[in-house]
Amino acid sequence: MKNKPPAKQQSREAPFAYEGLDRTIHERARLSILTSLLTHAAGLSFVELKQMCALTDGNLARHLQVLEEEGMVRITKDDDQGRTQTVVRVTASGRKRYLDYLATLEKVLRDAAAVDHAGQEIILPTLSPQNA
Amino acid sequence: MKNKPPAKQQSREAPFAYEGLDRTIHERARLSILTSLLTHAAGLSFVELKQMCALTDGNLARHLQVLEEEGMVRITKDDDQGRTQTVVRVTASGRKRYLDYLATLEKVLRDAAAVDHAGQEIILPTLSPQNA
Repeated sequence: MKNKPPAKQQSREAPFAYEGLDRTIHERARLSILTSLLTHAAGLSFVELKQMCALTDGNLARHLQVLEEEGMVRITKDDDQGRTQTVVRVTASGRKRYLDYLATLEKVLRDAAAVDHAGQEIILPTLSPQNA
Repeated sequence: MKNKPPAKQQSREAPFAYEGLDRTIHERARLSILTSLLTHAAGLSFVELKQMCALTDGNLARHLQVLEEEGMVRITKDDDQGRTQTVVRVTASGRKRYLDYLATLEKVLRDAAAVDHAGQEIILPTLSPQNA
């Protein structure tokens, strides 16, 4: 009987596909921006973000637009002692999506760390729960 | 005196720039391929890699070419019980470069984990040295 369905090639047979590596977040500049924003809950000004992420005005503006269109950041004009400044904050859904992404990033590191190459340096010696 | 050099804006003032996120490796498909290869020191056949990473023939071939040109993988035609098959292995320099990349990836996770958002789920609960 040659009629068996081709039941193989399930996605769980692709343990290294890392489909959770959301392309919107994985792009290096956007990963920088989002990590900066996540660690600064009060928001960051355009100038601060630019410096922290080492991005040009044009690059930062372009990537912020992508993130805003995806609903991951909110960009407002705030009044700072009489001067208007652009402030960027991560949204609740942006944070959720970033955390989902991080879970996959963790998986990459765990997969890599699970290998015990002879004579290999130990990976992840510093990673341990900080919020315990 | 207004002649002070503009000593600011050093790269150490860009803590979230993550310059170590080597673009050759960071691309999702190539990250999949390299992690697969790192965890299979004996090498993987083209077909195995394709399945593990959930890539099409064309995509896998294209990304392998990039990695080969960068000297990160070695592609050979091995004889497997009379049948020739394409086998891919990570090179020593490829592994070194991948491990450098991982160190930056770790930094992203540590930066994100350092934040203690009120009511935030604990990140990285499962990450701990496995080789201790």
